[in-house]
Amino acid sequence: MASVTGSGDRMHALVERLYPLCRSITGDGVRATLDIVGEHIPLQVHEVPTGTQVLDWTVPQEWNIRDAYIADPAGRRVVDFAASNLHVLGYSVPVAATMPLAELRGHLHTLPDQPDLVPYRTSYYTPTWGFCLSQDTLDALPEADYEVRIDSTLADGHLTYAEHVVPGQVADEVIVSCHTCHPSLANDNLAGIAVAVSLAQELARQTPWYTYRFIFAPGTIGAITWLARNAERVDRVKHGLVLACAGDRGQLTYKQSRRGDAEIDRVLRHVLAASERPHRINGFTPYGYDERQYCSPGFDLGVGSLCRTPYAGYPEYHTSADNPDFVSPEAMEDTLAVCREAFAVLDRNRRYTNLSPYGEPQLGKRGLYDSLGGRSDAKEAQLAMLWVLSLSDGEQSLLDVAERSGLPFDTVAVAADALRDAGLIKAGGG
Amino acid sequence: MASVTGSGDRMHALVERLYPLCRSITGDGVRATLDIVGEHIPLQVHEVPTGTQVLDWTVPQEWNIRDAYIADPAGRRVVDFAASNLHVLGYSVPVAATMPLAELRGHLHTLPDQPDLVPYRTSYYTPTWGFCLSQDTLDALPEADYEVRIDSTLADGHLTYAEHVVPGQVADEVIVSCHTCHPSLANDNLAGIAVAVSLAQELARQTPWYTYRFIFAPGTIGAITWLARNAERVDRVKHGLVLACAGDRGQLTYKQSRRGDAEIDRVLRHVLAASERPHRINGFTPYGYDERQYCSPGFDLGVGSLCRTPYAGYPEYHTSADNPDFVSPEAMEDTLAVCREAFAVLDRNRRYTNLSPYGEPQLGKRGLYDSLGGRSDAKEAQLAMLWVLSLSDGEQSLLDVAERSGLPFDTVAVAADALRDAGLIKAGGG
Amino acid sequence: MASVTGSGDRMHALVERLYPLCRSITGDGVRATLDIVGEHIPLQVHEVPTGTQVLDWTVPQEWNIRDAYIADPAGRRVVDFAASNLHVLGYSVPVAATMPLAELRGHLHTLPDQPDLVPYRTSYYTPTWGFCLSQDTLDALPEADYEVRIDSTLADGHLTYAEHVVPGQVADEVIVSCHTCHPSLANDNLAGIAVAVSLAQELARQTPWYTYRFIFAPGTIGAITWLARNAERVDRVKHGLVLACAGDRGQLTYKQSRRGDAEIDRVLRHVLAASERPHRINGFTPYGYDERQYCSPGFDLGVGSLCRTPYAGYPEYHTSADNPDFVSPEAMEDTLAVCREAFAVLDRNRRYTNLSPYGEPQLGKRGLYDSLGGRSDAKEAQLAMLWVLSLSDGEQSLLDVAERSGLPFDTVAVAADALRDAGLIKAGGG
Repeated sequence: MASVTGSGDRMHALVERLYPLCRSITGDGVRATLDIVGEHIPLQVHEVPTGTQVLDWTVPQEWNIRDAYIADPAGRRVVDFAASNLHVLGYSVPVAATMPLAELRGHLHTLPDQPDLVPYRTSYYTPTWGFCLSQDTLDALPEADYEVRIDSTLADGHLTYAEHVVPGQVADEVIVSCHTCHPSLANDNLAGIAVAVSLAQELARQTPWYTYRFIFAPGTIGAITWLARNAERVDRVKHGLVLACAGDRGQLTYKQSRRGDAEIDRVLRHVLAASERPHRINGFTPYGYDERQYCSPGFDLGVGSLCRTPYAGYPEYHTSADNPDFVSPEAMEDTLAVCREAFAVLDRNRRYTNLSPYGEPQLGKRGLYDSLGGRSDAKEAQLAMLWVLSLSDGEQSLLDVAERSGLPFDTVAVAADALRDAGLIKAGGG
Repeated sequence: MASVTGSGDRMHALVERLYPLCRSITGDGVRATLDIVGEHIPLQVHEVPTGTQVLDWTVPQEWNIRDAYIADPAGRRVVDFAASNLHVLGYSVPVAATMPLAELRGHLHTLPDQPDLVPYRTSYYTPTWGFCLSQDTLDALPEADYEVRIDSTLADGHLTYAEHVVPGQVADEVIVSCHTCHPSLANDNLAGIAVAVSLAQELARQTPWYTYRFIFAPGTIGAITWLARNAERVDRVKHGLVLACAGDRGQLTYKQSRRGDAEIDRVLRHVLAASERPHRINGFTPYGYDERQYCSPGFDLGVGSLCRTPYAGYPEYHTSADNPDFVSPEAMEDTLAVCREAFAVLDRNRRYTNLSPYGEPQLGKRGLYDSLGGRSDAKEAQLAMLWVLSLSDGEQSLLDVAERSGLPFDTVAVAADALRDAGLIKAGGG
Repeated sequence: MASVTGSGDRMHALVERLYPLCRSITGDGVRATLDIVGEHIPLQVHEVPTGTQVLDWTVPQEWNIRDAYIADPAGRRVVDFAASNLHVLGYSVPVAATMPLAELRGHLHTLPDQPDLVPYRTSYYTPTWGFCLSQDTLDALPEADYEVRIDSTLADGHLTYAEHVVPGQVADEVIVSCHTCHPSLANDNLAGIAVAVSLAQELARQTPWYTYRFIFAPGTIGAITWLARNAERVDRVKHGLVLACAGDRGQLTYKQSRRGDAEIDRVLRHVLAASERPHRINGFTPYGYDERQYCSPGFDLGVGSLCRTPYAGYPEYHTSADNPDFVSPEAMEDTLAVCREAFAVLDRNRRYTNLSPYGEPQLGKRGLYDSLGGRSDAKEAQLAMLWVLSLSDGEQSLLDVAERSGLPFDTVAVAADALRDAGLIKAGGG
């Protein structure tokens, strides 16, 4: 896949455009987000009614919000949803009341250790209301009676998610999944959405081997809904990647699937090591993003997760400091490049069977071998052919060949193509 | 299991009380030892007649000894059994003679490199007689004719061993075995006996999962006799521990079973590592204590051995310096604590099957999950639940969960209990 | 196998005698070489006709050469085959012409980075002609018309290889293979041939367990021919070693078989480590010497390769500097010693089954155990018996016992003999 000049800037522009929308696990903020994504890549948008049973869960009521504030006795809004959608506890029930600060405090969330930042908090499954504000703001509030107002609606409606499919040569699928439920947080996960969009655009210019399915869905309940509605065809999903925190300036982190040795795990480890980028490889944990659902033991899909700095690993995480300045075009470009490189390996990784396994086949008579013997510099391409012949037992893949030989994957793949064209190997088992 | 205040002193008192008795692989010294142990925990004592075929061996004649000495021409006892039972070669045949020192020397055993210590020596299966004494004593003996007298009996009788059983919820057994055949040697193995007694007392205050069987038997022939008489039911023994050298001031040493990956091996490795005690983990060797017999390839039981400094690893080993001062209450208390911690893990280690394996089950609606989302500090208890759910495939145990997650075993076990009570997992395979 | 005094000098004398002969993959140089080898050990010489199909290859025409030179306008031979057979590109077609230096250059091979050395080059399967010379010689040639003459013959004939067999107690075979196709190159591979000859002489003085088959054949096409003609009986080959570059002064290098865990691999790793020689263990690569063919995936034999400095790893490789001075009697003696030690292990390595696996058998009553107990210095021989008894489950070999116990292989093998003679173990599985 060719690099796309300026894609970093285009991704950053998308992050900035999506940033102000008030997303949650349901509601019009998600729909507005998908509308904008749909301007870049065609989307199939799904609306799943409230009350639908999805695996062990139930699709909740739809939440929408128009306004919210805390006003002092003078009527001045000291906390205002219009300034930042982080100010309202996600999924707050409506409220309209006046109460003393002492009573109000039980509904206020701050970060005492980061006193100038507003935290991000939600309460999806326990009905309550609340406001998030900086500790500094709270400390400046005099004791008084405050008017609190949240003009929200919790009502039967729908959960909204979307898919974009890049058809491949085979029906086997690679999924790329990103969560769409966070409001004004740039790295978590607008950067992931932006990288996914660019990746989809690049793939659409090719005819990849696999079919690539991009999933834009709210965290947890969205992935669970997708899994519930696709349970019958989930065995088509051979590999997958969850994209999150894709734009901060930290080094890349790949979190392995629950299986730990899934092909996607080996590909990402290989590509990150071969690229000589500083990076971390983390083992699976059942906490994090939607790899939790895809890797739940009943499905146990080969789905890993690619981030830069992992969730909760940076002080800006889930605060008002995770704004568009916190993510950089260069970082998103770099995340995109690793996805591109990884899918280039994944898409070409095959198992072959040597059809001439007794002794070496005579490569020279097929024009595949340097004719002048005795030279000590065995050419890399020829060496790659010998490695492919030696290891192609129908079990070991080209990635195995690359790793055991120490040769670049691309050299190995080119050698395999030449051997296949010469009729010396065939795809698949014996 | 709760720690028992003062148990170190009580164990040391037991060591001191048992120390003077002249034990061997048979005879009244063993019976007197078991009588005293029986004052602390109820024992079932077995008497196996001389000549009984036990596996490849035969129960030998019973040895008893009343007096033994070497007297100089003046009638003065220069070596006297009454001063220390180590002075007589174990299983010496009776002798009453007078002979020059030159002739006597062939029957004398010393430690030239530790000239002030008396060695411990036996000759169980080759009839002979002898005395053990310090090199200093020997060097001080003038050439003269000496009276030698060993008033011992070798006659048909019995081999004596004992069992104590703590009933559990299941018939599957854990055995704890210690050798009872060494005379006045404190660390080897009165300390092991004392720790076993305290452990049995602690377990009796609970209703453990496993049935715990304590075996007090002479080394080699005793374990072989037990195995021969229990061959039909030995498959009930799921785990076991041989206790020896349990009281010296050195660091703990766990010697793995022949299998090396038996559950007892994993438990001891885990507990010793988690406790951050300095310790050694040694591989199996077919030399040492009665793990040799339990781990012989025909039985191949999951039996490891817990010592402090291993046999032959300290200069006091098998000498008169292995006296009650050589063992400390604190060291025995520490050995006991590790046994307690290990059995607390072993006894609760189970395999579970996740009954809701497709996606995560909704813990919140079952009261198992913090309701306020967005916070970065996932509580350890909730994380433990997610790990148990993720790995409970009927194959992986709670110890696997603890090791893979890095969470304390106890936290994992508590989480599993909560999930089981909520009907989300069930014990055993799928 | 006993060391043979003076074998280093005898091997070096053989290298010097074989050095001047012009070998190639076919022709009279190979026959003359085998005649000389046949003076030391009896050989069965095989002649395979040109055109014979051997696996994917065809036996080529036979190449013979009588004279070759480049002469200047004064008739002076500036490059002369009589001075060194390296001067002619191996398998050159005949030529008799006069041409300007500019035209001649396309047929000249030099080493610009090693300007005083003559390279070794061949063109077996692409008909052409050429000369090899030092860059210095080339640089000194004035522009002029040169007479070029190669008096060679390429005609139907035969490919020649030879075998020498040392009969063993069983029909299972160990092959030792060395390539015979290189002309005046001492380390590559006259030293290998010389070591093989000495090894065969030593083995013939014994009655080894395995049948040892020595193969002297041209590289690649020779091994392929041997495999083609022995395909029906190749399953008798249990182990093998390719000997090459056996005489330079570098440290030893063992290259593992494709399987990596073949018994020969384990034996060589063990012997080299136990000997405390500095050495390298390399993984398999499908490039190198005839292990390429023996380890091709259809055969996948347990054949490794023993060299000192591997091919292409020393500057003298494939140049006129690989002359008899480059190899030393001491180095060949050392290579021979490792072969001797390795085959001593391989030849005695067996799997046994413990016939008394329940508890330890009573070694004392069989005269196998020191009768005086209590001593801390368990004798190594007795410990070896306990290890053999513990691990002899029909699966683990004596080499496994040696490696797990840390005891010398020889001690373990002697212990196994004693136990077998006492009827406590039997060869083979349960």
